[in-house]
Amino acid sequence: MGVIHTFLGGEKDWNWEGVEKKTYPDSSEPGGPRGVSVRWLVGRKEGAPYFALRYYEVEPGGQTIYDQHAHDHGVIILRGKGKVRLGTSIHEVSFGDVVYVPPNEVHQFENTGNETFAFLCVIGNKEFLKNAGVM
Amino acid sequence: MGVIHTFLGGEKDWNWEGVEKKTYPDSSEPGGPRGVSVRWLVGRKEGAPYFALRYYEVEPGGQTIYDQHAHDHGVIILRGKGKVRLGTSIHEVSFGDVVYVPPNEVHQFENTGNETFAFLCVIGNKEFLKNAGVM
Repeated sequence: MGVIHTFLGGEKDWNWEGVEKKTYPDSSEPGGPRGVSVRWLVGRKEGAPYFALRYYEVEPGGQTIYDQHAHDHGVIILRGKGKVRLGTSIHEVSFGDVVYVPPNEVHQFENTGNETFAFLCVIGNKEFLKNAGVM
Repeated sequence: MGVIHTFLGGEKDWNWEGVEKKTYPDSSEPGGPRGVSVRWLVGRKEGAPYFALRYYEVEPGGQTIYDQHAHDHGVIILRGKGKVRLGTSIHEVSFGDVVYVPPNEVHQFENTGNETFAFLCVIGNKEFLKNAGVM
């Protein structure tokens, strides 16, 4: 059975029918997450065996965790403006920009504007990747 | 090395630096594609081993192919309005709506408006799925 999550809109937060918001605890570490939340739009709950599609919001002044791991990310910016660190380089990004973070690349997203910075982020299904020997 | 495809915008077509448009040949079959094009934003060209992120445009009056296959799709609508067939049911969709098409579900997208109908569509990497015995 297919699944539809109807978009409910919103000013600061964007919401969807049947999708919960998960807020990351703020960290006081320099490379820790601050002002970050995620909504899993497609994933295990929808029965997706091979990938997941998540929607991330980063508040003004916030940043995602300074991260590095064996799986990769496909990202497209939907709202606001920010910076992305990819390895040793830093790029400014805004609506529509696409970012591919390959396996093992250091990466971090930072909100550099006064409004919500938000993006979609695709990953492989971790259980599937583990069973396939990737992780 | 990470990859960034900067968004170039556009009125009718949306374009990205380093991304090519591929237009599907129009079909005269009832279930064939008409007015459909795709841009692969993240895929093999970017070195992504596990999934792909594509951007589809459907012109007014157009539709994607009436399709059914072993892999699944994660879709989010970005522009215009349309209908999606999921199995035997049909749903109206517009900006922000999320559609999960599970493996083997019949599906088809149709532009029901006067403007470009466009969506992002995630799939697993077909070679990876084949090697994992899925396809």
